[in-house]
Amino acid sequence: MNTILKPYKKDCDYSYTSGAYATIELLKAAPTHVMEVHIHSRYHDPTPVERLCKNIDVPIVHGDKGFQRINEKENSYVLGVFSKYDAPMKADRPHVVLVNPADMGNLGTIIRTITGFGLRDLAIISPAADLWNPKTIRASMGAFFGLRFSHFDSFGDYSHRFPHHHCFPFMLDGTLLLSHDSCPREPLYSIIFGNEATGLDPWYHQLGTSVRIDHSTAVDSLNLSIAVGIGAYLFTNVNANETVGLSP
Amino acid sequence: MNTILKPYKKDCDYSYTSGAYATIELLKAAPTHVMEVHIHSRYHDPTPVERLCKNIDVPIVHGDKGFQRINEKENSYVLGVFSKYDAPMKADRPHVVLVNPADMGNLGTIIRTITGFGLRDLAIISPAADLWNPKTIRASMGAFFGLRFSHFDSFGDYSHRFPHHHCFPFMLDGTLLLSHDSCPREPLYSIIFGNEATGLDPWYHQLGTSVRIDHSTAVDSLNLSIAVGIGAYLFTNVNANETVGLSP
Repeated sequence: MNTILKPYKKDCDYSYTSGAYATIELLKAAPTHVMEVHIHSRYHDPTPVERLCKNIDVPIVHGDKGFQRINEKENSYVLGVFSKYDAPMKADRPHVVLVNPADMGNLGTIIRTITGFGLRDLAIISPAADLWNPKTIRASMGAFFGLRFSHFDSFGDYSHRFPHHHCFPFMLDGTLLLSHDSCPREPLYSIIFGNEATGLDPWYHQLGTSVRIDHSTAVDSLNLSIAVGIGAYLFTNVNANETVGLSP
Repeated sequence: MNTILKPYKKDCDYSYTSGAYATIELLKAAPTHVMEVHIHSRYHDPTPVERLCKNIDVPIVHGDKGFQRINEKENSYVLGVFSKYDAPMKADRPHVVLVNPADMGNLGTIIRTITGFGLRDLAIISPAADLWNPKTIRASMGAFFGLRFSHFDSFGDYSHRFPHHHCFPFMLDGTLLLSHDSCPREPLYSIIFGNEATGLDPWYHQLGTSVRIDHSTAVDSLNLSIAVGIGAYLFTNVNANETVGLSP
């Protein structure tokens, strides 16, 4: 099986983690999807990774050729190859919805951030950056494997599938100025964010309560991952009590 | 003067903005430091940039050679070359302190974010990512030119220079769990963040009140720029009244 490690492309049916930390997260959180783990001859501490692989019968490839082939920017001595899988979003938990996110680094950082705040269900409206790209997975720092996600061709498809979520589109001219006091108390919410360059179309105003994060006129907008971070922080903090007891 | 456009290096005494947006911010916010502006023959709308340059007597270079030379990843049709300058931090305003930040993208995003929340004074403790690198400036989306900043060889040097600021180091094991209610009310504060990989040394516990941002055990930590974003958001929100009237 160790012939498969080629540079990742979007239509591959597999992807990979780069580095021991992300690979260990993969082995722990998504063991049934791991195809093989490559360990470089120069890796100083292979035992923990090897033990995990043996516990779940994952083949280990000792050899350096795969590492040269995939052309990584950063040096990495451990690679975990895994098959893409389905982990569809759940209907009884709050959601984060990203409409046309374009940057893989942002996407991975957002996955790390929302997971850190207990939001584990992500909807992505296409076209969008590739969720499976190793760059996205690297930026998520292993959080990717705790995520449930679904892709939709349009926001309409999303809201048709989840009609009971209260929608909160984040917009520069949002109606509700978000703060600790004003932040909506809703057990079942979707916080919705647009593309890095274009934000959300004015159409989203009709969806529910559009919200905005106050910032000075010295900047045009906040970075997308920062806006998601602050939105996720506030919504999960004020709704902490309500979300206890939802499905694990 | 149009022979200077070479790939940027850390020891250059100039840097440059890439793209019309950042260059216009440069021309507006730091006009006396601009050396020249390059406009590519394929740029579709040169008039606003040209007018700004003429108003402040900045030479315009029409020609495409400079663009090839600097080897930009993204295509850019406007470049603003400027000399590095001093804009030292002020003593009577709150500060953000970054200890050994390593990533230029993070650094630029942090500048954009804190500027958006009205914090315009940044201390950088060396070694650190290059504040002047075009990548940092690009990630700041023009906010760089509204920033005041100082470099220090150690945190001791910083605190010696600004002894009256209340220090709040952000640490994974910080004493104070940060929230809207618990966030310190202090007119003159320094919020302090460590390196992306290593955070702040335990030594920082003694500095003042160490604080932490709650997150689930599903992630080891938050991304640095996200942590700064949430810290800056909370501190500026709860201290909004106190900071009115400080120096512009």
